[in-house]
Amino acid sequence: MLPSQQGYDRAITIFSPDGRLYQVEYAIETVRRGAIAVGIKSKDGVVMAVEEKPRKLQISESAHKIFQIDEHIGFAAAGYIPDARSQADNARFFSQSNRIIYDESVDVETVAKHLADQCQQYTQFGGARPFGVALIIGGVDSSGNSLYLTDPSGTYIAYDAVSIGAGSEQANDFLEKNFKHDLSLDDASALATACIYMASDQKEGTDHIKMSVIKTSTKQFEKVTPEQIANYAKLGKQKFPIPSS
Amino acid sequence: MLPSQQGYDRAITIFSPDGRLYQVEYAIETVRRGAIAVGIKSKDGVVMAVEEKPRKLQISESAHKIFQIDEHIGFAAAGYIPDARSQADNARFFSQSNRIIYDESVDVETVAKHLADQCQQYTQFGGARPFGVALIIGGVDSSGNSLYLTDPSGTYIAYDAVSIGAGSEQANDFLEKNFKHDLSLDDASALATACIYMASDQKEGTDHIKMSVIKTSTKQFEKVTPEQIANYAKLGKQKFPIPSS
Amino acid sequence: MLPSQQGYDRAITIFSPDGRLYQVEYAIETVRRGAIAVGIKSKDGVVMAVEEKPRKLQISESAHKIFQIDEHIGFAAAGYIPDARSQADNARFFSQSNRIIYDESVDVETVAKHLADQCQQYTQFGGARPFGVALIIGGVDSSGNSLYLTDPSGTYIAYDAVSIGAGSEQANDFLEKNFKHDLSLDDASALATACIYMASDQKEGTDHIKMSVIKTSTKQFEKVTPEQIANYAKLGKQKFPIPSS
Amino acid sequence: MLPSQQGYDRAITIFSPDGRLYQVEYAIETVRRGAIAVGIKSKDGVVMAVEEKPRKLQISESAHKIFQIDEHIGFAAAGYIPDARSQADNARFFSQSNRIIYDESVDVETVAKHLADQCQQYTQFGGARPFGVALIIGGVDSSGNSLYLTDPSGTYIAYDAVSIGAGSEQANDFLEKNFKHDLSLDDASALATACIYMASDQKEGTDHIKMSVIKTSTKQFEKVTPEQIANYAKLGKQKFPIPSS
Amino acid sequence: MLPSQQGYDRAITIFSPDGRLYQVEYAIETVRRGAIAVGIKSKDGVVMAVEEKPRKLQISESAHKIFQIDEHIGFAAAGYIPDARSQADNARFFSQSNRIIYDESVDVETVAKHLADQCQQYTQFGGARPFGVALIIGGVDSSGNSLYLTDPSGTYIAYDAVSIGAGSEQANDFLEKNFKHDLSLDDASALATACIYMASDQKEGTDHIKMSVIKTSTKQFEKVTPEQIANYAKLGKQKFPIPSS
Amino acid sequence: MLPSQQGYDRAITIFSPDGRLYQVEYAIETVRRGAIAVGIKSKDGVVMAVEEKPRKLQISESAHKIFQIDEHIGFAAAGYIPDARSQADNARFFSQSNRIIYDESVDVETVAKHLADQCQQYTQFGGARPFGVALIIGGVDSSGNSLYLTDPSGTYIAYDAVSIGAGSEQANDFLEKNFKHDLSLDDASALATACIYMASDQKEGTDHIKMSVIKTSTKQFEKVTPEQIANYAKLGKQKFPIPSS
Amino acid sequence: MLPSQQGYDRAITIFSPDGRLYQVEYAIETVRRGAIAVGIKSKDGVVMAVEEKPRKLQISESAHKIFQIDEHIGFAAAGYIPDARSQADNARFFSQSNRIIYDESVDVETVAKHLADQCQQYTQFGGARPFGVALIIGGVDSSGNSLYLTDPSGTYIAYDAVSIGAGSEQANDFLEKNFKHDLSLDDASALATACIYMASDQKEGTDHIKMSVIKTSTKQFEKVTPEQIANYAKLGKQKFPIPSS
Repeated sequence: MLPSQQGYDRAITIFSPDGRLYQVEYAIETVRRGAIAVGIKSKDGVVMAVEEKPRKLQISESAHKIFQIDEHIGFAAAGYIPDARSQADNARFFSQSNRIIYDESVDVETVAKHLADQCQQYTQFGGARPFGVALIIGGVDSSGNSLYLTDPSGTYIAYDAVSIGAGSEQANDFLEKNFKHDLSLDDASALATACIYMASDQKEGTDHIKMSVIKTSTKQFEKVTPEQIANYAKLGKQKFPIPSS
Repeated sequence: MLPSQQGYDRAITIFSPDGRLYQVEYAIETVRRGAIAVGIKSKDGVVMAVEEKPRKLQISESAHKIFQIDEHIGFAAAGYIPDARSQADNARFFSQSNRIIYDESVDVETVAKHLADQCQQYTQFGGARPFGVALIIGGVDSSGNSLYLTDPSGTYIAYDAVSIGAGSEQANDFLEKNFKHDLSLDDASALATACIYMASDQKEGTDHIKMSVIKTSTKQFEKVTPEQIANYAKLGKQKFPIPSS
Repeated sequence: MLPSQQGYDRAITIFSPDGRLYQVEYAIETVRRGAIAVGIKSKDGVVMAVEEKPRKLQISESAHKIFQIDEHIGFAAAGYIPDARSQADNARFFSQSNRIIYDESVDVETVAKHLADQCQQYTQFGGARPFGVALIIGGVDSSGNSLYLTDPSGTYIAYDAVSIGAGSEQANDFLEKNFKHDLSLDDASALATACIYMASDQKEGTDHIKMSVIKTSTKQFEKVTPEQIANYAKLGKQKFPIPSS
Repeated sequence: MLPSQQGYDRAITIFSPDGRLYQVEYAIETVRRGAIAVGIKSKDGVVMAVEEKPRKLQISESAHKIFQIDEHIGFAAAGYIPDARSQADNARFFSQSNRIIYDESVDVETVAKHLADQCQQYTQFGGARPFGVALIIGGVDSSGNSLYLTDPSGTYIAYDAVSIGAGSEQANDFLEKNFKHDLSLDDASALATACIYMASDQKEGTDHIKMSVIKTSTKQFEKVTPEQIANYAKLGKQKFPIPSS
Repeated sequence: MLPSQQGYDRAITIFSPDGRLYQVEYAIETVRRGAIAVGIKSKDGVVMAVEEKPRKLQISESAHKIFQIDEHIGFAAAGYIPDARSQADNARFFSQSNRIIYDESVDVETVAKHLADQCQQYTQFGGARPFGVALIIGGVDSSGNSLYLTDPSGTYIAYDAVSIGAGSEQANDFLEKNFKHDLSLDDASALATACIYMASDQKEGTDHIKMSVIKTSTKQFEKVTPEQIANYAKLGKQKFPIPSS
Repeated sequence: MLPSQQGYDRAITIFSPDGRLYQVEYAIETVRRGAIAVGIKSKDGVVMAVEEKPRKLQISESAHKIFQIDEHIGFAAAGYIPDARSQADNARFFSQSNRIIYDESVDVETVAKHLADQCQQYTQFGGARPFGVALIIGGVDSSGNSLYLTDPSGTYIAYDAVSIGAGSEQANDFLEKNFKHDLSLDDASALATACIYMASDQKEGTDHIKMSVIKTSTKQFEKVTPEQIANYAKLGKQKFPIPSS
Repeated sequence: MLPSQQGYDRAITIFSPDGRLYQVEYAIETVRRGAIAVGIKSKDGVVMAVEEKPRKLQISESAHKIFQIDEHIGFAAAGYIPDARSQADNARFFSQSNRIIYDESVDVETVAKHLADQCQQYTQFGGARPFGVALIIGGVDSSGNSLYLTDPSGTYIAYDAVSIGAGSEQANDFLEKNFKHDLSLDDASALATACIYMASDQKEGTDHIKMSVIKTSTKQFEKVTPEQIANYAKLGKQKFPIPSS
C-alpha cells in the first residue's frame, strides 16, 4: 500500500490528492478477480458466455451469472454476483416500465445507460458502497444487435466483442485478433468458448461454461444447451486455437 | 491480521484494495463456526437436519435452528441463529403475501431468492450489519423437490445435498460420495444423521439432532420424532459408515 | 485485550474477523455481572426469584427486578435493570394489544419471542446499543406452565429451570442436580432460594430475596410475601443443602 | 485512565468489554460532584433541601435546584442543573396531561418512573448524551408520602430518606443513623439541614440552603422561608449534632 | 492540555470521566474572551452597557451587542455575537407569540428561561454546537425591574447587577462593592461605564461604550445617546473611582 | 500548526479549548486570500469595485464578483466566489419575496442581516461547511445610501467605506485617511480604483477592475463601463496617490 | 503530502487552515488528468472537440465525452466521465423544463449557471462528493454564439476558446496565440484538432478525435463525421503548426 493511499480509500465518495476514487477502483478490482464473462456480436445474433464452476452437488441447470432482462435482452456478469442480481431486478423493472409507458420494448442502450447511471450514483452519494460487478449487456432491438459493457465507475461503452474478469486482458487480445464483423453466431459462440478456455484453469469439458444467445431473427433470449456448448467448444478448438504462451 | 486488512474491515459496505468485502467474509466466518446443518433431496421428499446441543434443563422439544416457513417450505440454519429467526419471520410474511396476492403457494426458489436479495441489501447499504447466518431452504412445490442455500453474501444456489457450519467441508465430501438421485427419504435422513455425527464431537445418541422433512406426496413440512431420528441414526451407521480419518 | 479485538468491539453491529459480534458479547457480560435471577417450573406453578440488595433507607416493598407483564405472565431480570423496565413496558403493551386484537390472553412463548426479536433488531441496526439485560419469562397459559430465557443476542429458549447473572453457572449445575418434573411449587420456591444463597455473599436472612409465582390453578401473577420467602428459605436449607465447595 | 477504558467511553450507548456503559458512569460522576441534595419522608410530610451557594449579587429568592412539578410534587436535583430544568418541564407537562386525561392528579411514582424511563432512553439511543443529573422526587398522593430517586442510568428507587451529590456518602450514613419513621416534619427538616452542613464547607448561616416541603395535610408543595430554614438549622444542630470526624 | 481531556472535548454532548462537558466549557471560554457586557438594576430602571470598539470607518450608530427583544425587554451579549443575533431573533418571535396567544406582554423571566432552555438543548443533542454567547437580559414587567443572565450551559440566574466577558471578574467585585438597591438609574448607568473602563484598555472617551435602558416608568427599551453616555462616564469617574490595582 | 489546534479544526461547529471556532477562522482565511473588493459610500451614491484578473481568452464583459441583487442593491465579494453566487441567488429570492409580501422594495440592511443570519446557521449546524466568502453589500433605500459587510462568521456591520480580501489591511488604512462624508460619487469611484491598485500587483491598466454603482438619484444598480473605469483610475492617481511604502 | 494537508483533505466540505477546500482541489486534479477537451467560438458557430482513445473492439461511433443537451446546446467534458453523464441528464431535464415553462429555448449561460450551481452545492453540503468533471458548454442562442466553462468548484466563466484536461496549459497558450474573433468555423475546427494533437501522445490519425459543432445559422447541435475531422486535422497541420518544444 502506498502512503498516498492511506485514508483516501476508506470512505466512500471522496477524492485522493491525485484525483482518484479508490473505492471505485477497488470495486473494479472485485470485477478483475471474478471469473471471466464474454460477449460477442455476430451477424445473426449476440452471444454471452461465462465461466461458472459448480460446487459439489450443486444443481447447475440454470446459470447464476447470466440473467435474462427482457425477451430480447440479457446480461453476463463478472465480480460480486449478488450485486448483479440486484442490478438484474432493477433492469427488469425498468424494462417492463418502458413497455407499459411507451407500449414498445426498450432499447438495449437505454438499459445499459440506466444501469450505468445507477452505478454512478453509488460512487457519488454516501450511505452505500459502489456496485462490485461489471455487466456485458447483449440484445437485439430496432437498431440491430447490441453489446454494452457497464462497470462500477458508471461507465458504459458499446463493443463488438469484449470480456471481463480474471484473464480478460489476454482474452480481449485474442478477441481483437479473431473478431470479424461477418462472424456467424455459431462461430461467435465457438470463439466465446475459446476465450473461457484461455482464462480458466479447466482446459477440457464444458460443465464450467454457461452460454445464452439472442438471435437477430427471433429477438428472443435463449439458453444454450450443454450439448450445443460442447459442440461450440469443439468447433472453437478447431477454428480458434489458443496460442501457447 | 494482515496489514492489508487494517481499516477495510471495520466499516460496513466498503471494498478493500484487493476487492473484498471483509464484513461479508466475517459474517460467513460466523456461519463456518456455527453448528452443522444439512439438507438432502431424495426421490420422495426433502430432509433437513441440524445439530442442536441442548443446555442443561433446556426443553428441547422444538428445534431452534429449523424453521417452518409455509406448509410446504422450511429451512435449517447455521450461524447467528437470532438472525435466522428474523429471516424466518420475513419469509413467512413474504410467503403468505404470495398466497394472498396470487392465490397459490409460493415456489421454494422464489423464497430463496427473496431471502438472498435481502442479504445482498445488507451488504451494500449502511446502517445495519450483514446477516450472520446461512440457510438451507427445502420444500416441495409444483416443480418438485427443491433445496437451496443462501448465505450472508446474498448468494443463493440450488443443491441436491449440502451442509453448512463447522465440519461442513468433510460432510460435503461425504455427501458427494454417498448422494444418489434415487435415494429414498429414509436413506437421505440416515445420511443426514451421518453427516452430523461426522461434524459433531458427540458420536452417540440423538438428543443433539433435530430433523424435519417435507414429503413429495404430502407437500407438508413435518418434524421428525426423536424415535424416528434414532432409527435413522442407526440406519445411517449401517449404510453410511464414517471413514476413520 | 487481545489484538484481534481492537476496533471490532467499538461500533455496534459489526463482525470481527473471527465472526463475533463483540457488542453483543459485552452486553452479555453485563448480564453475567448482574445479581442472580432464577426461574423454576413446578407441577403446580412457576416461580421466579432474584437477589436484590436494598440500599440504606431504600423502601424495598416492591421488587425492581421482577416485573408483572400480564395477569398470567411476569419476568425476572439480570443485568442493566433500566433496560429490563423498558422491555417490560414493551411487553405489557404487546400483551394488551394481543388481548384487544384476538380477545384472548397472549401465550408466554409469544411474549418471549417478541422480546427476543426486539433484542435481535438492536444487534443488527445502528443508532442504538443492544439491550444489556437477560430475562427469565414465566407464566401459565393454555399450554400449561412455561419458562423462557431471552438474552441480548436475541436468543430465546424454553427451560424447566434456569438461572442468570453472577454465580449462575454453579446455580445451574445445582438446579440440574435437584430439579425434578414433579416438584411442588413450594419445593421449587425453596430450591430458588437455595440458588440465590449459593450465588450471593449474603448467606443468611431474606431481605435480599424477592420472589413471585404464577400458580397453575389461578393463572395469576402474585408476589410472595417476605414471610413466605423466609419459610421457603428455611425449607430450602433443609431440602437442598448447598454443597461446601 | 485504565487501558480497558480507551475508546469505550467516547461514544454514547456502547458497552465496554467488562459490560459497562462508561458514558452513564461519567454522567453519574457529574452528579457525584454536584452540590448535595437531600430528601426525607416524615410522618406529616416530605422535605427536600439543597445547597445553593449564591454568586455575588445573585437574587437568591427562588431556588434553582428545587422544582415544583405539580401542586403535590416537587424534586431536588444534584448535577448538571440545566438538565434538571429540562426534566422538570417534561414532568410538568406529563403531570398536567395525566390530570387532563384521567381527571385526577398523578401519582408520585408515576412521575418518577416517567422521568427514569426518559433517562434510560438517553442511555440506549444515539444522537444525545445521557442526562447529567439525579433527582429526589418528593410528593404526597393517594398512597401517602412518597420519595423517589432517579439517576442518569434510568434507575428509580423509593427511599425513606436519601441524599445525592458531593458528600452524600457520609450524609447517607448519617441519615441511616438518625432517620425514624415517626420523625415530625420539623425534625426531618432539621435533619436535612444537618446533612447539608455535613457536606458543605460552609458550616454556619443558611443563605446556602434552600428547602421545600409537601405536607401530608395540605398536599401542597411550598417553599420554606429563610427564617424557617434558620430555625431548622438551629434545631438540627441541637438534635442531630454532626460527629467530628 | 491534560491527558484526561483527550478525546472527550472533540465531540458534542459527551461526558468526560470526571463528569464534565468540555464543549460547554469551551463555549463559556468564548464568552470569557469576549468584550465586557454589564447589566445593573436600579430603583427606577435597568441599564445594560457593552464595550464595542468600532473598526475603521464603521458606522457605529447602532449597537451590535445590545438587542431590543420587545418594547420592555432587551439584552446585552458577550462572546460570539452572531449567536446572540440568532438568540435575539428567537426571543423576539417567542415574545410576539406570547403577546398574540395571551394578549399581554411576556415576563422577562419567561424570556430568560426560554433562551436558557434553548441553550440546554444544544448541549444535549447532536448535530449542532452549543451557543457561544452569554446574555444579560434586562426588562421591566409586572413584577418590576428584572435582570437575568443566561450562558451556554443553559443556566439562567437573576441578578441585581452582573457583568460578563473579559475583565468581568474584577468588574463583578467592583459591582458588589458599589451596588446598592437604592441606586438611581443615572448612578447605575455611571457605575456601568466604570465597569467598562475597568475591563477595557481604553480608559478615556466613550466611543467604545454602548448603552440602553428600560425605565420603570415607561417600560420602554431605549438607546442611550452618546452625549448621555459621556455624561454618565464623567459621573462614573467621580462617584465610582476605579481603585488602582 | 499549534498542538492546541489538533483535532478542533477538523469538524464543523465545535469549539476549541480556547473558545475558538477554527472552521470559521479558516473560512475567513479564504476571504483574506481572495482578490480585493472595495465599497465606498459617497454623498450621491454607493460604489463597489473588485479586482478580477481575466484568464486567457476569457470573455470579461460581465463581472463575476459583483452581483446585482435587486434594482437598488448589489454586492461585491471576496473569497470562494461560487459561494457568493449561492448567496446572491438566496438574496435575490429573499428580495423578491419581500417585494411581493410587503409591496415595497427591501431595505439594504434587511438583506445584509438575512445573509449574515444564513452564515451564522452554517457555523452552528452540522452537515455543511461555513460560507467561504465575505460580501460588501451596497444599495440605496428609504434611509439613504447603505453599505454593509458580512463575513463567514455571520457578522454584519455598516461601513462608510471598507475593503476585503488580500491587501485590504493597507487599503482600509488608505480609505480611513482619504474617506470624507462629502465625497462625490466620482471621487469615491476614483478612490476605489486606488485601493485596487494598492492591493494588486498590476499597477497599470484597468482590465482587472470591475465596478458598479447605485446612484442616490436613480436608486438603480448599474455597471460602470471600462471607459469610465479608466477615467476613474486616472482621476484616482491624481487625487489619491498611493504612498510609496 | 505536506503536513498541513493531513486530515483536512479527507472529509468533504471542510476548510484547511490556509482556507482551502482540498476535496475540491482533488476533484479538479481529476479533471487535470483527464483527456483533453477543447471548445472554440468562431464567427459562424461553436466547435467542441475531445480526445477519446477507443479501447479494443469498442464501437466508437458515438462520442462519450461530448453530450447534446438541447437542440442548440452541447458540452464536452474532461475528468470523471460518468459524472459528466449525470450532469448531462440534469441539464437536459433543466433545458426541457425551461422550454415547457417559458415556451422558449433556454440560454446557454442559464444552463452553465445551473450546472455550476449544482457543483457548488456538492462542495458545501455533506453526503456526496464534488463532481469530478469540468465541462465546456457551447451553444447558439438569442445572444449569439456562447462558450462556457464549469468546473468542480462551482465556477463558470465565459470564454472565446478554452481547453481542459491533460495538456491544456500548453493548449491554452496555443489557443491564445492563434485565436481570432473572425475565425471561420472550419478554421476553429482545425485549430481544435491541433490542440488535441498537442496534448495527445497520438500525433497522427483521427480515430482518437471526436467533434461536434453548433452552427450560428442552424442553431443545431451536430456531430462532425470522421471524414470531416480528418479534413480539419489536415487543415490544422497546415494552418496551425505545433511548435516543436
